Parts: sequence; C-alpha cells; structure tokens
Amino acid sequence: MTALSPQDFAAWMGAIQQRTEAALAGVLPEPTIAPERLHEAMRYAVLGGGKRVRPLLVHAAGAIGGAQPERLDRIACAVELIHAYSLVHDDMPCMDDDVLRRGKPTVHVEYDDATALLVGDALQTLAFQVLASAPVTDMPTRQLGMIGLLAMASGSRGMAGGQAIDLAAVGRQLDLRELEFMHIHKTGALIRCSVLLGAQAGTVDGETLERLDRYAKLTGLLFQVVDDILDAEADTATLGKTAGKDADHDKPTYVSLLGVADARRLAQDMLAEALAALEPLGARAGHLAALANYIVHRPF
Amino acid sequence: MTALSPQDFAAWMGAIQQRTEAALAGVLPEPTIAPERLHEAMRYAVLGGGKRVRPLLVHAAGAIGGAQPERLDRIACAVELIHAYSLVHDDMPCMDDDVLRRGKPTVHVEYDDATALLVGDALQTLAFQVLASAPVTDMPTRQLGMIGLLAMASGSRGMAGGQAIDLAAVGRQLDLRELEFMHIHKTGALIRCSVLLGAQAGTVDGETLERLDRYAKLTGLLFQVVDDILDAEADTATLGKTAGKDADHDKPTYVSLLGVADARRLAQDMLAEALAALEPLGARAGHLAALANYIVHRPF
Repeated sequence: MTALSPQDFAAWMGAIQQRTEAALAGVLPEPTIAPERLHEAMRYAVLGGGKRVRPLLVHAAGAIGGAQPERLDRIACAVELIHAYSLVHDDMPCMDDDVLRRGKPTVHVEYDDATALLVGDALQTLAFQVLASAPVTDMPTRQLGMIGLLAMASGSRGMAGGQAIDLAAVGRQLDLRELEFMHIHKTGALIRCSVLLGAQAGTVDGETLERLDRYAKLTGLLFQVVDDILDAEADTATLGKTAGKDADHDKPTYVSLLGVADARRLAQDMLAEALAALEPLGARAGHLAALANYIVHRPF
Repeated sequence: MTALSPQDFAAWMGAIQQRTEAALAGVLPEPTIAPERLHEAMRYAVLGGGKRVRPLLVHAAGAIGGAQPERLDRIACAVELIHAYSLVHDDMPCMDDDVLRRGKPTVHVEYDDATALLVGDALQTLAFQVLASAPVTDMPTRQLGMIGLLAMASGSRGMAGGQAIDLAAVGRQLDLRELEFMHIHKTGALIRCSVLLGAQAGTVDGETLERLDRYAKLTGLLFQVVDDILDAEADTATLGKTAGKDADHDKPTYVSLLGVADARRLAQDMLAEALAALEPLGARAGHLAALANYIVHRPF
C-alpha cells in the first residue's frame, strides 16, 4: 500500500477537522435560543478544540465504501457529541474532578456542576437526534441498526460501562487482561463504532467490514496505550489537560503495569497488526493507515 | 363518550403497569453482566416503583390506532427510561439534592454520586437503543422520525432544557407565562411525546393525531399543576418523595403564583379542555380520558 505523504495527510486531516467543526456548529442549537445559557455551555463544551479523532475515523472509513461526505458529517457529529458528553461528565467533581480540558477550564468550572450535568445529558440526546433526523444511508432499516450500534457502543455495555469499570478500579491492582477489558469499553467501543458507522454509510462487502473491524478494535486499544504513555511523560502545558493525573489517582495504566519501554513496544506491535488488517484494501485504506500511525506518533 | 368504570380503569392500569415492569426488567441488562454494580444500580433506579404515567399514555394512545401491544411496550420502555434517567440526575446533590424517591433512598444515596451520574447516562442511552433495535412500526422511516421525536422531547429544547430553565428560576420571580414555558419543556415535552409515539405506532389520521396532540399538551401541563398542588399539601410519607421541597428551594410553582384554590380551578379547566379534545374520538379514547381524570384526582 502506498503511504500518504505527510503533507497530504495533514491537509486531509485539517480539511476534515474544519468541516467537522462547521457541522457541529450547525447541529448545536444557537446560544440565542432558550435556554440560552445551556446552549452556550453546550457549544463551549464541543466547539473550538479537540483533535476530532473519531470524526477522522468516520470519514476515513466512509471513503472506503464511497459514502457521501455530507452523510459522514452527520455520523461524525453524532460520535463526537457522544465523546464530548462523556468528557464533560468525566471531568465533574464526582468523577475525575478535572479543571482543565483542551487548554480551557472544564464546563463545571466555567459554568457550574448542574449546568455541566445538563450539558452532558443534552449532548448525548443531540447525538441520537442527529443520527435519526436525516438519512445517513439509503436504507432506513440499516440506519436504525446504526443508531442501535451507537447506543450499544455508548451505554452500560460500552463507554459508560467502561467508566464504571474504571471507577471500580481506582486503588485496585488490575492485571493486563482486566485493564484491556476496561479500555475496550471505555475508549475502544466508540472508536470501533466510528469506523463501523463510517463504513456502513457506504457500500462495503463482509470481508472488508471484518478487516475494518479488526483495525478498529486494535486502534481503539492503541489509542489508550499511547494515552497512558503520554500521560506519564508529558507535562500539563503540552497535553492541554492535567498531566500525570492517572498516577495521582492511583489508577492502573499500561505504563504502571508494563513500564514505559514495554508499553511502547506493545503500541508498535498493535500498530503493525492494525496496518496488516488494512493491507489487502490497498490505497483506499490509506487515510485509516495514516490515522493509526498518527495516533502512535501524535505530538501531543 | 361512555366513561370507563373505575374498576375497569383500575384493572387496565394494573395490567399495563405490570407488563411495563416486565418489559423494563427485560430490556435492562442483568446485574450478573459486567459492570455488575452499574447494572444493579440501573435496575434499582427503574424497577419496582413509579406510577408509569408515560407508559400508560403510550398504551392508551396506541390502542386508538390499533398498534401492537408488544411494540407499545418498547415505546413505553423508551420513554420511561428517559423519565427514570432524568429523576436520577435531578436528585443529585448538584441539582435538587434529594434523598428520597418512590419511598426509597435515591440512587446517589444508595450507591454514590459517580454511579448515579453513570446510571442516568446509561439509562438515556438504553432508551434510544430500545427504540432503535426492533420494529415499533412497519415503516422504518417513520421509526427514525419517532427516535428523532423522542430526542427532541428529551434534549435541550425539551426536558433537559426545562431543567435548565428551572435551575435559572430558583429565587427569581416568574410570571405565569414563564412558569408555563418551563413546564412545557420540563415535564410537558415527554408526556406529549409519549402520546404521539403511542399513536404513531398504529394508524391514525391527521385530525386524530392533532386532537391527541392537543390532549397531550394539556395533560402535560395539568400533570405539573397537580404536582404543585400535591407538593404544597401532602406530607412526605404519602408522597413517597420529599414534600414541600419546591417551597423550601424557593422555586416558583402554580400554587405560589395562584394560590391553591385558583391552581385547583386551573386544573379543572384544563381537564375539561383535554376531555373536549378527545370527545369526537368516542370510546376508543376512553383510557386517555380516564388517565387525565386520574392525573387530577390521583390519591398521591
């Protein structure tokens, strides 16, 4: 598979991030609509920041099956709204109690706890509204399945369940299998869902979908391994969120279980496996391959 | 329109409450599935209590268009899960800080704040999963519209928005129009949605749907007027939740604006209007009429 040039990848990434920002701004209610403060806080939580990894995955996977970019925008908004809601709630005092996110005060700090609670609630609702209220495929039955898939990935047996497992793990010694189980839920499920939803918006055969699923599962975990490494090594200024907080909270991480060197080796192995899964798809999968590389080598 | 006998209405209500309980128990993940504590808390929040007003409305409206009862069960679960999530979050310390609900300790008291946050989040997700993952009408496109309707009724321009307006109103003097605006969002939107979703699961013509919508809007507000009267008059033991909390929190209510006598008169007028909207639908609308009467005259 011919690798994308770093310039082409950067240009593509910038373009997707830009159109995602515009699409999100379009689906979020204007702050002039009542309740004004809630709508302002929802926009504060979502707009003007974030690497938009999930929207990038949606578009990269969607391009493989020839999905319409405008439909991919809707899917990208839905998964990013779920991600944003989870960050708002995760930052609250009763969860991670974090004050900094994407270089800005977290929503409960900038507004208040009750508003942060409602912002998260309403962002989740908006995600499902966006995915239901215009076609993202020509087949309404498939679209219902896609909504079900997003719900499964987000709920108690997906992302929210992962948060619960994470909470229960604080101060406990997990083994590698348990840590993986947590991350498959907490981060992996929504990343995997982003790839599958993007693919299903277009036309892909069963084998391709299976390969994309393998790529997506590996990339979801990869993301977390690298996150743990970054969290252990970076300082707060470059990370844009509070660094070292996992160790502070006595949370198990890949680094605390394996050490930095072995965690890095694990990341390299998973990256190789993810790229191998894409190999037979050829140049069509170039952006997905570049994204996996980016996740491992991202500067922050 | 021939009124239902009190015995027939009570028997119907008991039957719907029972089948709703069974349906909810069926869609909630078993507490033996990981994360066990989250699933146990989700069941604690939803099962074994509640008057199930919204499911009753779903079934009563659904019967008018001849919808399949099993499909109405799914819709009833979806709206009741949204309602249950909103109660869990509303009771949290950063919102109403309530310790008692349906005669039991609230979720954050029985478990902890972080679990309550995740329980609410995951119940909302489950509502959309339930509504997307099996047919509730023969038309998938209509089902997508129904999911969109539930989202609209629940989100920042519906129920969650109503909570935000409510928060902003504490300690402020609202006029009747502003109070109504709040309740149309906070309680009215989901009640109205319950009636419309039930009707759309069957076959109803445009005029019938319009009449049902008028009934539903009035009944949603009616519910709140009566709630305010009950909150002002009842004691905690009979109410099953903390009584008098609205006045304690200096929240505007129909009673604080109108006094009990005028609030009662308003409720009677709205009831008469709601029944008038149903009148031409005849006996088919008997359960809906009885429900509006029940809401006004409910013993607690």
